[in-house]
Amino acid sequence: MASSALFHPNTSSLFHKTKPKAAPQKPKLYSFPVIACSSSSTDAGDSSPSLFSSLSHNHKNRRPAEENIRDEARRLAQSHNFSAKYVPFNADPQSNESYSLDEIVYRSRSGSLLDVQHDMEALRKFDGNYWKSLFDSRIGKTTWPYGSGVWSKKEWVLPEIDSDDIVSAFEGNSNLFWAERFGKQFLGMNDLWVKHCGISHTGSFKDLGMTVLVSQVNRLRKMKRPVVGVGCASTGDTSAALSAYCAAAGIPSIVFLPANKISIAQLVQPISNGAFVLSIDTDFDGCMQLIREVTAELPIYLANSLNSLRLEGQKTAAVEILQQFDWEVPDWIIVPGGNLGNIYAFYKGFKMCYDLGLVDRIPRLICAQAANANPLYMYYKTKWQEFKPVKANTTYASAIQIGDPVSIDRAVFALKNTNGIVEEATEEELMDAMAQADSTGMFICPHTGVALTALIKLRSSGVIGPTDRTVVVSTAHGLKFTQSKIDYHSNNISDIACRFASPPLQVKADFGTVMDVLRTYLEKAPK
Amino acid sequence: MASSALFHPNTSSLFHKTKPKAAPQKPKLYSFPVIACSSSSTDAGDSSPSLFSSLSHNHKNRRPAEENIRDEARRLAQSHNFSAKYVPFNADPQSNESYSLDEIVYRSRSGSLLDVQHDMEALRKFDGNYWKSLFDSRIGKTTWPYGSGVWSKKEWVLPEIDSDDIVSAFEGNSNLFWAERFGKQFLGMNDLWVKHCGISHTGSFKDLGMTVLVSQVNRLRKMKRPVVGVGCASTGDTSAALSAYCAAAGIPSIVFLPANKISIAQLVQPISNGAFVLSIDTDFDGCMQLIREVTAELPIYLANSLNSLRLEGQKTAAVEILQQFDWEVPDWIIVPGGNLGNIYAFYKGFKMCYDLGLVDRIPRLICAQAANANPLYMYYKTKWQEFKPVKANTTYASAIQIGDPVSIDRAVFALKNTNGIVEEATEEELMDAMAQADSTGMFICPHTGVALTALIKLRSSGVIGPTDRTVVVSTAHGLKFTQSKIDYHSNNISDIACRFASPPLQVKADFGTVMDVLRTYLEKAPK
Repeated sequence: MASSALFHPNTSSLFHKTKPKAAPQKPKLYSFPVIACSSSSTDAGDSSPSLFSSLSHNHKNRRPAEENIRDEARRLAQSHNFSAKYVPFNADPQSNESYSLDEIVYRSRSGSLLDVQHDMEALRKFDGNYWKSLFDSRIGKTTWPYGSGVWSKKEWVLPEIDSDDIVSAFEGNSNLFWAERFGKQFLGMNDLWVKHCGISHTGSFKDLGMTVLVSQVNRLRKMKRPVVGVGCASTGDTSAALSAYCAAAGIPSIVFLPANKISIAQLVQPISNGAFVLSIDTDFDGCMQLIREVTAELPIYLANSLNSLRLEGQKTAAVEILQQFDWEVPDWIIVPGGNLGNIYAFYKGFKMCYDLGLVDRIPRLICAQAANANPLYMYYKTKWQEFKPVKANTTYASAIQIGDPVSIDRAVFALKNTNGIVEEATEEELMDAMAQADSTGMFICPHTGVALTALIKLRSSGVIGPTDRTVVVSTAHGLKFTQSKIDYHSNNISDIACRFASPPLQVKADFGTVMDVLRTYLEKAPK
Repeated sequence: MASSALFHPNTSSLFHKTKPKAAPQKPKLYSFPVIACSSSSTDAGDSSPSLFSSLSHNHKNRRPAEENIRDEARRLAQSHNFSAKYVPFNADPQSNESYSLDEIVYRSRSGSLLDVQHDMEALRKFDGNYWKSLFDSRIGKTTWPYGSGVWSKKEWVLPEIDSDDIVSAFEGNSNLFWAERFGKQFLGMNDLWVKHCGISHTGSFKDLGMTVLVSQVNRLRKMKRPVVGVGCASTGDTSAALSAYCAAAGIPSIVFLPANKISIAQLVQPISNGAFVLSIDTDFDGCMQLIREVTAELPIYLANSLNSLRLEGQKTAAVEILQQFDWEVPDWIIVPGGNLGNIYAFYKGFKMCYDLGLVDRIPRLICAQAANANPLYMYYKTKWQEFKPVKANTTYASAIQIGDPVSIDRAVFALKNTNGIVEEATEEELMDAMAQADSTGMFICPHTGVALTALIKLRSSGVIGPTDRTVVVSTAHGLKFTQSKIDYHSNNISDIACRFASPPLQVKADFGTVMDVLRTYLEKAPK
């Protein structure tokens, strides 16, 4: 039975608090963690708990009660020499165009995309084992800001930002799920994985990039740069992530949406997160046009999809996959592609791990597009000879319904440098793949259905082998796409057979009837 | 630029694969991990990657390509002396009634609840530091089954199950979110946390318990015990979790639901996961009655809420909280309570950490109930003198709308032994708290709103102090409750003022109008 001193008996007493009221130790001089060496003990030793044994277990300073984790990070902050800057994407080696990350700039002088370039020489002063140990030491704890899967790689993301300026929901660290049954049942594969980036704070992978963008905006505001708020025109995951991170930081977020074109379910995240949501009497292109005009007049930072800061956060998902595999490199990564920033972000994360000696190769990348919005696939089919934007048709994979992707050059660069492949999925294929995956215990979004279709095709053609370690990137939680699943299982989609639909069975509330139905079912069920 | 050998060039070549095709090393003799000692290096050493440096970094066996992680676990499996059994809950010390976990038994001979009792003497042969190091060593990787937050504590959960029988989605390891802004803005608190158990595979904390129940059922089926499937009568999270885990294992799951009483959105998870869903022409109590009758006739395992196996999984969330705090103990844990199993599970997890020397005290527990379904609160108010079931009225916190909780005795035991508190929340209070939390960047479910209301009240009365480290347990993803948020922000709930509603603003598609609206908003916005 519990003794009376087991719990802290009342809030005014300090007697049993193990959290001291004043910092007992000086800040460490060297902030990069030295991995604690603790050997396992098999002694049947004294197991009676004591304050001392608890304190001696971990070698960090316990923070005083008045101090929050942000204060603690400030107290322990150390200087280093890492830095990063904006350069034009894939710039001519002769170019010396660059910008501080503290400038508000979205495109290069020539109008091309920007890229965040890290000082690789400074990072290379530490070897691959150092980085692996450092990143591994930060997992599973709540130390600010390293409890985040993005900021646990802070030196590779925004090295110069003060931890105090970071806006984080401890994003990342998402489930790398072993798709045992799906692999075995549908593909004859034994090493198939789904990186569930959508099992996250706002329900999509956008959190990874948005924590970086909003943190940098937070820094700019503290530097008194003119940023009164952050704006976007989006019907989906971007506005949800933007408004959540702005809300956490107390930064105004502004979302432009076409009136009567979207459901209130699509609005519910920005509204709940207190964004200033303007429902405008126009279509989506009209909203985009208006927000561009408005941000030219007002100092509102534009959280658009060409923003290169966001890719720095997204690339950490690649590092995280390697880390979760204990730094063994998978053979294939399959990423759904719409605006095409994410496939480049994955390339960048893997390439950085290779360049800094954490791994000795990188995976081949596969980009999966909906056939209804497949400009990259068409380009790939011409062997990268001719790119033509397409008119995107409606697809259940709504977040990748994009005909003229802003990051086309980034994606091609990533694919060329990884011997990459592009595949496409029809509506029937992607919905069937989603239903098949769900039937094995997942609950995925239609975009993941697109990626799984690519896998099915490449496995079927023998390009992907049965024992190839393959990771499918899942970009949103299935809970955001329940209507598409309802449509499918209700057999309510024109032109689609819904072969894997599994509707409920209507039964009378009668014991005999229920028993008959169950017996029939169980006779056919797996034993 | 990448060299041509950077990626694995084609699938038939083995040259650059670091994953050997045959196991190169003998299995280790001692399977409990010895924490690897690696010191950080500041040398500007050779950063060129090599196969050797990569292999030397981690000391585990690389598994051959033909082997999946389940095979690897089988190869490395070791014997130990840990065990557990069913005993009557809070049994008389004289009682010798007990059951093997391999028996199918739901209640004791006298009809009381069961409890899984571990052989604490066997576990005590290892001290607290051993367990902390063991659990910490399993975080952030994909080793079977320890990549799961539940099974990383396997020795404390189902010690005797073969890893091969485990059905896991790598559940757990959920975000322990620092609610910085909510704490600061609404409560003057600096150390407030939300354990987001609902940011999970099926969107609720039920995954934690269901992986244990379905794994044990999987074991029983492999032992040829008569279990043709698993059944439940549930409209919500339980049926979702049950069907997902059964789907992953290929075990038939059977869900009874009242026809015309629930929305198809509530059905979409079991249907997608291929459960056999019977929509029965009766109400919820009628479904419960029918499934009890059916499971008395057919060998269908009943996944009901009195099941004590599920609590073994749920208790790992308590261990995980301590682990995420680097084994420092918070002052308060607030858990929403309906059927009341979860509050006992948290107690059990904390108590086990105390008894085995991982920590030197345990937190005080607070159970939060909806005022519309508050039998525990009423009982607490009588100083535990008189328990009366109540008629549960409709509440937005639908998963805890229970008037006669099955785990009442478990909850009272947990609260008495932690100097616990019970609070309640009206519909207006819980919806306001949800909206307030969302406005600071969260996206919580109404049950979490109940828990936050308890916090607000206890903070306001001074019971919880401004620097008390407090953890609110969030049990489901807000994405499961978008309709309640839409109702609130549309000001569409009778009897509730919806004080924090933040509806979108309708604007004409005109630059001048939009600018005027934005300027007015930005004048009042935080700078």
